[in-house]
Amino acid sequence: MKWFELPHQLTYYECDPQGNLQLGMLFNLGVLAAEIENQGTGVGLGAANQLGGGWVVVNYAGTFDLTHFHAGDQIVVATRVKAFNKFFSLREFSIRDHTGHEWVHYEATFVFMDLVKRRIMTIPPVLIEQYDLAPVKRIPRVPAPSDLVVDDTWQQHQYDVRYFDIDMNGHVNNSHYFDWMLEALGAEFLQTHQLTGVKIQFDHEVRYGQRVTSQAKVADLVTYHQIKTADQGAARAELTWVTVGK
Amino acid sequence: MKWFELPHQLTYYECDPQGNLQLGMLFNLGVLAAEIENQGTGVGLGAANQLGGGWVVVNYAGTFDLTHFHAGDQIVVATRVKAFNKFFSLREFSIRDHTGHEWVHYEATFVFMDLVKRRIMTIPPVLIEQYDLAPVKRIPRVPAPSDLVVDDTWQQHQYDVRYFDIDMNGHVNNSHYFDWMLEALGAEFLQTHQLTGVKIQFDHEVRYGQRVTSQAKVADLVTYHQIKTADQGAARAELTWVTVGK
Repeated sequence: MKWFELPHQLTYYECDPQGNLQLGMLFNLGVLAAEIENQGTGVGLGAANQLGGGWVVVNYAGTFDLTHFHAGDQIVVATRVKAFNKFFSLREFSIRDHTGHEWVHYEATFVFMDLVKRRIMTIPPVLIEQYDLAPVKRIPRVPAPSDLVVDDTWQQHQYDVRYFDIDMNGHVNNSHYFDWMLEALGAEFLQTHQLTGVKIQFDHEVRYGQRVTSQAKVADLVTYHQIKTADQGAARAELTWVTVGK
Repeated sequence: MKWFELPHQLTYYECDPQGNLQLGMLFNLGVLAAEIENQGTGVGLGAANQLGGGWVVVNYAGTFDLTHFHAGDQIVVATRVKAFNKFFSLREFSIRDHTGHEWVHYEATFVFMDLVKRRIMTIPPVLIEQYDLAPVKRIPRVPAPSDLVVDDTWQQHQYDVRYFDIDMNGHVNNSHYFDWMLEALGAEFLQTHQLTGVKIQFDHEVRYGQRVTSQAKVADLVTYHQIKTADQGAARAELTWVTVGK
């Protein structure tokens, strides 16, 4: 499959206090590129919604160096469908600087959600036939975060879901999970560490009016995260870091 | 003065759950256009920071109809300096759809803040000489929100400032004040009302680690807002609305 490339000039509000691309915004840009690719082949958001559903991300995993992407930079957000079957579409993403050098590479599994029944449906064939790919039996697995038991040594922060956290699919946009997860680490950690890897699994959607707990454990250069609502786990993640000067 | 025009394709993450441009994002886009205009004349963010400061917004006022700007739309964000003196720069903003029709028009007063001393400094002449304008004695006044006394009938919500609320000026980016203000109105109000006017005054900066209280009063089709920290008022606003179907 050919890469679809979205050229994009980074704005200051897509960057963090230090002027580097924000992690949540990076994933927004990836989804944007996928949407624009779909739109170009006539099966964009409008077509998906007419079929009663929307694309939803199940997991992300990959390698990240965000320090090469700054406010004002011209970057390229590239994506392509790697494999699909009746229920899953696996997409690959590559974020490159203006010279074409790749600093971020990750994969994502997408499902198609019935926006009324709020459950997974089979992917409408029209949305996927456009890709010059044959369906596969088993989708390659995106690496999952480690299974960990949360205990008293984990930090906890609570956040109320805000109206503007909700996207057009009617639930919290997955980019906000990263705000909750990173926020739990605090400014001191974020200013002295640089992200190198992400594995995240989205288990259940979060809706307007809910309160989430963001739990985090720092184990040297790996951080473990869980987002949960009152009744169930919503997402788990494992992030890897290197130390840097402030 | 000639308008500087920034063409921009709206992304889904700049829009609200209903798919219209978000108010906070609109102000981000305005500042972005001003920055890109400054950059084009060689006095962008880098030049400002080398002079030890950054542009900070003191107030906004204008008329707004955000329902004509949707995810995917090609829009134009236009801005120009209208007047300036030693301490203030008055900018005008016009947001237009792809046909050139203006749906949003507002003005903003900017000051230049010393980023170490955290106080207003005189505007370095090099940053303003570029504009083909003579300085004026008195800057035209941007309409201010009404002075109101907050009492027990006002709703109150508390928010902790998040690391990613902070911008490169080291304080909460003013677009987040709108999230706090609108959030206090609740989804029901936001889904049944459409914004027509904004007057907002930023009195004091808010920093990382602070907790803010967002106070709001709904008086039919006008809402009054105050954001305060533990020790002082940070911003006041008056918004006007019309009712719409859900």
